Amino acid sequence: MDPDAVARAFVEHYYSTFDANRSGLANLYQEGSMLTFEGQKIMGSQNIVAKLTSLPFQQCQHQITTVDCQPSGPAGGMLVFVSGNLQLAGEQHALKFSQLFHLMPTPQGSFYVFNDIFRLNYA
Amino acid sequence: MDPDAVARAFVEHYYSTFDANRSGLANLYQEGSMLTFEGQKIMGSQNIVAKLTSLPFQQCQHQITTVDCQPSGPAGGMLVFVSGNLQLAGEQHALKFSQLFHLMPTPQGSFYVFNDIFRLNYA
Repeated sequence: MDPDAVARAFVEHYYSTFDANRSGLANLYQEGSMLTFEGQKIMGSQNIVAKLTSLPFQQCQHQITTVDCQPSGPAGGMLVFVSGNLQLAGEQHALKFSQLFHLMPTPQGSFYVFNDIFRLNYA
Repeated sequence: MDPDAVARAFVEHYYSTFDANRSGLANLYQEGSMLTFEGQKIMGSQNIVAKLTSLPFQQCQHQITTVDCQPSGPAGGMLVFVSGNLQLAGEQHALKFSQLFHLMPTPQGSFYVFNDIFRLNYA
């Protein structure tokens, strides 16, 4: 298993789901998952998806610029660090963002998001 | 122990050391530490500090914009996500950057950097 390939596949899956149907992200988080969104801390899959679906825009499109990946330790986790652009419908300019995912393995051989930190990079 | 206070103290210590004397960062990394610097992967304290001290600028100053912190799991680690500006001597404009540190506890009750991912955020 190539970690970089896993990271890229996760990132593509995550953002295509975000852009098509944010509530579909629920099964990527679990009860112990944490999101820090622009400094606001939110815990648990249900609260995280409530936050993401309540963001004040409807259509959006993420465009990925870089994906960096490192193993996070003996538990089999993986840090995935993303930078990219977020285009909101009706806005002229895309927003730059950085996001960190800490993926942890599931017993089924997949991964879930244990840590998620999102920041816009204001120009 | 307030994790946010620990994270802020680490970040201040890290960047003030970086800006004053990069080789002083060596004791913040260990043999298993990883750095991904603009996509380049480097392992081990010695190689990491060799990379940081060989960056093609002398004086620099980091200015921190945001610090986000989350516990990374049962091993007592901590994710510290930083955004800020990097001013290089002689350059007119500061560079925006994002950086992730995954801190792991030492037996002495301190922390070392296990994962480090650095990216410039080009405008």
